[in-house]
Amino acid sequence: MPSEFKITRQVDFGDTDAAGVVYFANYFRFMEACESAFFRSLGLNLSEEHSAPRMGWPRVSARCDYREPLRFGDTFEVRLFIKEIKPKAISYVFRFTKRVPDGAPVLAAEGEVTAVCVTFNPDTRKMTSSEIPAAVLAKIQAAPPSALAQ
Amino acid sequence: MPSEFKITRQVDFGDTDAAGVVYFANYFRFMEACESAFFRSLGLNLSEEHSAPRMGWPRVSARCDYREPLRFGDTFEVRLFIKEIKPKAISYVFRFTKRVPDGAPVLAAEGEVTAVCVTFNPDTRKMTSSEIPAAVLAKIQAAPPSALAQ
Amino acid sequence: MPSEFKITRQVDFGDTDAAGVVYFANYFRFMEACESAFFRSLGLNLSEEHSAPRMGWPRVSARCDYREPLRFGDTFEVRLFIKEIKPKAISYVFRFTKRVPDGAPVLAAEGEVTAVCVTFNPDTRKMTSSEIPAAVLAKIQAAPPSALAQ
Amino acid sequence: MPSEFKITRQVDFGDTDAAGVVYFANYFRFMEACESAFFRSLGLNLSEEHSAPRMGWPRVSARCDYREPLRFGDTFEVRLFIKEIKPKAISYVFRFTKRVPDGAPVLAAEGEVTAVCVTFNPDTRKMTSSEIPAAVLAKIQAAPPSALAQ
Repeated sequence: MPSEFKITRQVDFGDTDAAGVVYFANYFRFMEACESAFFRSLGLNLSEEHSAPRMGWPRVSARCDYREPLRFGDTFEVRLFIKEIKPKAISYVFRFTKRVPDGAPVLAAEGEVTAVCVTFNPDTRKMTSSEIPAAVLAKIQAAPPSALAQ
Repeated sequence: MPSEFKITRQVDFGDTDAAGVVYFANYFRFMEACESAFFRSLGLNLSEEHSAPRMGWPRVSARCDYREPLRFGDTFEVRLFIKEIKPKAISYVFRFTKRVPDGAPVLAAEGEVTAVCVTFNPDTRKMTSSEIPAAVLAKIQAAPPSALAQ
Repeated sequence: MPSEFKITRQVDFGDTDAAGVVYFANYFRFMEACESAFFRSLGLNLSEEHSAPRMGWPRVSARCDYREPLRFGDTFEVRLFIKEIKPKAISYVFRFTKRVPDGAPVLAAEGEVTAVCVTFNPDTRKMTSSEIPAAVLAKIQAAPPSALAQ
Repeated sequence: MPSEFKITRQVDFGDTDAAGVVYFANYFRFMEACESAFFRSLGLNLSEEHSAPRMGWPRVSARCDYREPLRFGDTFEVRLFIKEIKPKAISYVFRFTKRVPDGAPVLAAEGEVTAVCVTFNPDTRKMTSSEIPAAVLAKIQAAPPSALAQ
């Protein structure tokens, strides 16, 4: 059962800001893109519009520590590790590494996100936290502490 | 009945890109912010989540011509003009002007957006184009050609 | 000397996501918009393109805890508190409150950002951390713990 | 010499808005991502920070016609066609098609962008339009009208 996942992206011009580097808020977009791709790789979906009831995974907390800036055109990897699985929530750690020509990848940033499983009331669209479905739990597991400590 | 509206904004750092200017796609965000504020000023709402059926105004076309870049911290105005009201759609022209200390405002960009009135199917969330409600039509009118030609 | 600041914003449609609420990464944009406005209110600038050397305040860490979603059209306040001033860095706490018609404001989110003062090498555009200028230190102070504990 | 290019993307949750579809302004980000990838495929760079003088390709106009919405998780292609090469500017047409399981791809949107070649003044960071370098012209050509008419 997977506890890790990885995507590779390139910095678009629209990801940057006037300091010439990826705007700090965009790292959170990349974390969620990685989480979505992880779910898809398992045949799951982060936002089940067509389930009854409709489900989703809103974030309850997010953080990021920035080490080395990413610039337009840089190729980078976002590596996801499942840190903890609770009855209604999952915590992920994300590690961003930048590819360096003729060199070892450089740690660019490290983040963490906790997402809670919710159902949407179809009339009010309000969200209520909900137990993680068995179909999801059957496909994932927490990463070993050694992976997180790398 | 109003045919024009205006908002004033300041460029946030997150609006810029690595060229040091507002990223070109963000002008479209500002146009919609102006359109939303215009609707609110009339006691209307661009996205009626709580109406039955739920209504909205997706864009069918959008364009922008860029004249003078906007930079972090610049104060600018977005001026909306209703260009045309059709049975199911409204076209707007937007003019961006940058405030210049001790000088006349400078035309920064000019855009145009056509938005179509739709209802959402509550089950499938599909959109269907729909006649503009009388409550909206009663509050707006097209701007005179002289305003648009300025 | 101020240790707090506040901006009021309304949720634009472009701030939302398919869950119908403000996309979680956008809270970080709002935090920085508040920080920029705070600097401007003091006659300072978060990004000094025209100073020699050019200065800036990249983020070294950022976090947000989400409590109540913000939806399209909601009016909310972002309140900044200076948590700590170090020789080369400032930490801020941000509190988001949503206005509720005929009710008390609701805490929507709470965040924290640490920004480091840097100078840019004009040739390589690389950033080097730098002592906070005296002109900035003369205008700000840390908020009392009681303000942060509210 | 190539006159066309294509990228494939998946809709991230952060690309969507409260209508459940890709926010209209984000199509312009995807167009530029395609244009950047096209340049990279030719060994060129849309933003030459390290050239002397520094070069770039700001947009002077952009438009998009929206046909079929894209939703979270949809896979889509952005196809670039060079429409016209002028001494100092290039116009591109972009076609967005959505992949449909067990069906033909659907035209989602069609856009057009004109970008002008500029150099940056290193001191003022002002941009001046400039002849397209021969190294760029040697690698691209306009698409045949038949490709654009598809």
